[in-house]
Amino acid sequence: MGSYQNGVVAGDRSGTSNGGGGPVPVVDKELDFAQYFCTYAFLYHQKEMLSDRVRMDAYYNSVFQNKHHFKGKTVLDVGTGSGILAIWSAQAGARKVYAVEATKMSEHARALVKANNLEAVVEVIEGSMEDVTLPEKVDVIISEWMGYFLLRESMFDSVICARDRWLKPTGIMYPSHARMWMAPIRTGLSEKKISDYEGAMDDWHHFTNETKTCYGVDMSVLTKPFSEEQKKYYLQTSSWNNLHPHQVIGTAALVKEIDCLTATVDDILKVRSNISSSITLENTRFCGFGGWFDVHFRGRREDPAQKEIELTTAPSFDNGTHWGQQVFLVNPTIRVTEGDNLNFSFLMIRSKENHRLMEVELGCEVRQCSGNVLPAFNKKYYIE
Amino acid sequence: MGSYQNGVVAGDRSGTSNGGGGPVPVVDKELDFAQYFCTYAFLYHQKEMLSDRVRMDAYYNSVFQNKHHFKGKTVLDVGTGSGILAIWSAQAGARKVYAVEATKMSEHARALVKANNLEAVVEVIEGSMEDVTLPEKVDVIISEWMGYFLLRESMFDSVICARDRWLKPTGIMYPSHARMWMAPIRTGLSEKKISDYEGAMDDWHHFTNETKTCYGVDMSVLTKPFSEEQKKYYLQTSSWNNLHPHQVIGTAALVKEIDCLTATVDDILKVRSNISSSITLENTRFCGFGGWFDVHFRGRREDPAQKEIELTTAPSFDNGTHWGQQVFLVNPTIRVTEGDNLNFSFLMIRSKENHRLMEVELGCEVRQCSGNVLPAFNKKYYIE
Repeated sequence: MGSYQNGVVAGDRSGTSNGGGGPVPVVDKELDFAQYFCTYAFLYHQKEMLSDRVRMDAYYNSVFQNKHHFKGKTVLDVGTGSGILAIWSAQAGARKVYAVEATKMSEHARALVKANNLEAVVEVIEGSMEDVTLPEKVDVIISEWMGYFLLRESMFDSVICARDRWLKPTGIMYPSHARMWMAPIRTGLSEKKISDYEGAMDDWHHFTNETKTCYGVDMSVLTKPFSEEQKKYYLQTSSWNNLHPHQVIGTAALVKEIDCLTATVDDILKVRSNISSSITLENTRFCGFGGWFDVHFRGRREDPAQKEIELTTAPSFDNGTHWGQQVFLVNPTIRVTEGDNLNFSFLMIRSKENHRLMEVELGCEVRQCSGNVLPAFNKKYYIE
Repeated sequence: MGSYQNGVVAGDRSGTSNGGGGPVPVVDKELDFAQYFCTYAFLYHQKEMLSDRVRMDAYYNSVFQNKHHFKGKTVLDVGTGSGILAIWSAQAGARKVYAVEATKMSEHARALVKANNLEAVVEVIEGSMEDVTLPEKVDVIISEWMGYFLLRESMFDSVICARDRWLKPTGIMYPSHARMWMAPIRTGLSEKKISDYEGAMDDWHHFTNETKTCYGVDMSVLTKPFSEEQKKYYLQTSSWNNLHPHQVIGTAALVKEIDCLTATVDDILKVRSNISSSITLENTRFCGFGGWFDVHFRGRREDPAQKEIELTTAPSFDNGTHWGQQVFLVNPTIRVTEGDNLNFSFLMIRSKENHRLMEVELGCEVRQCSGNVLPAFNKKYYIE
């Protein structure tokens, strides 16, 4: 056989059970751990996240510019990884911090806590959030749970579970709110992906000819499934991209808003919305959608933040993040101009094979400023 | 969090249970399937294997130049994938061919069999070899089970299991024999990997300074574990390489020989041998070892092949394979010259975390032709 040597597998730190309930398929914990958590057991991956200045600044400022939320309080860090958020919480004056981490990274977190003289305050607990028992309820839950396009990785399930079990009625969520955004974009990616796909098919035809001539087997019956496999890979799988603001050709549409204090797993199992965007550029090409998220640190109504902090992963000149944006390509691309309107329906569900990956259905209709309406189209995408 | 999008995971087609017995750790089947088999469910991966001319020619010739082994006989193809070996067996005159495949690739194999008008002869069975029940014993077991450096993927376990359960006492194995080889090499890879490692560490030091200055956390306690993680990744993990014969600087040593008709799982759980190689080049650099394998199609003593076929993955000018060779780097490199002798001890075991991956221990001593013996060294490697 000779299969590829191991690549990095999608990974995060959350637990696998359903937390707030809802019809989530049962998950094989060992499988989930091997497929998902494993990445987070590597320091190079922690370093990548810790090197994301936008991410670091937002959490750092949210804590140190709102010390009143931490001073003398109890804090739970869900998926602490290297322990950075737990350490900041302690440095901001927390009385006690519980730092829960499912992977062996917990041992590094413990060492880091000790090296920074905070063992008296920060208690690192190795285990998945769903299984862990704390000696008390907490005033604050802090967590960096966001995946690509916010919900990939489904880690927020574990934060919800932690909140429902361990947050005091007066408790505060860090972050407190999250939003998903989408906007029409122009990108050369379409051409690249299409030519990659066409190249793969040319290759295939050469291959089937060879196999027939040299080895007496007619493979052409597999041409259709191969084409579908390649289409899915090149054209239907969203890709990570660090979009330049100039590539955004229309107004950003709010796809989903989450109040981290009240959201349930049911609220995020299916994300459905009908939204619209108006083109803001003259005579350009509509090549697809860019999807991103932002989160806010506002405290709670009765106990607001002194300084509200925002962490956005929107397209930016100089503040890119490791999350980038997810790009969903539209083929063929469509000529649009300022004043045209896109009305689209968005549906995102979890993949049956892996609850941490997503499937997206996009329906779209272009209503030109002339009043003319282009034929609507429907596309299916995969967030891998 | 924002973890990498899914990479390709190591995959093959074998079952997960122990087959011939022996102290193999119990394996989570669902986990093994997701981690390993999945790759083989993709046509692009099948195409890669089917495009390997050395591999294809060897199996094609072994079947069609030894039709007497197939004419009117019953055949079992272990891990049939696209079904190519089963189809050839039928085309060579087999009366009945059972083609067992664990992944959904079985559906494509069935379609391919039908398109080539062999449904009357070839029966595709979806299931793992260990679970499948056949209506009869077979005259021939054919399988392409070889992973990197022969045993990675541990798929031969399933072939052994199939043989012990379903091969007639007079039955024949295709291939009939397999060998592992190692030879000292020179390569620029050492410099590259060392500078990659050093670059990663420079990066890390910059990162820890930043984190201390900007975010008030001293990460230096993690420098040692990070360094070990990176050393393992860059310097202790064997890498795929398509070596040029000129890079081989000494005689190839036979590490292991397997008679596919009689080998047990116990025989391959641990591969241990003491071997030696003499340097054949004047004044060169010993940078590490290249590891590869060959297999032979000889039939069996009482019923030999009319034409013996060899499939080798040794370094070659123009007959490279998708298996390439595995390179185990030695640092620092050692000056050697014609007539010097390398005596080395080789031990390969399966990784505790994943029974389809391997761990290698290499002890080596350089005995110079002058009689002078350089200090011996011991190194641990990982075949991921």
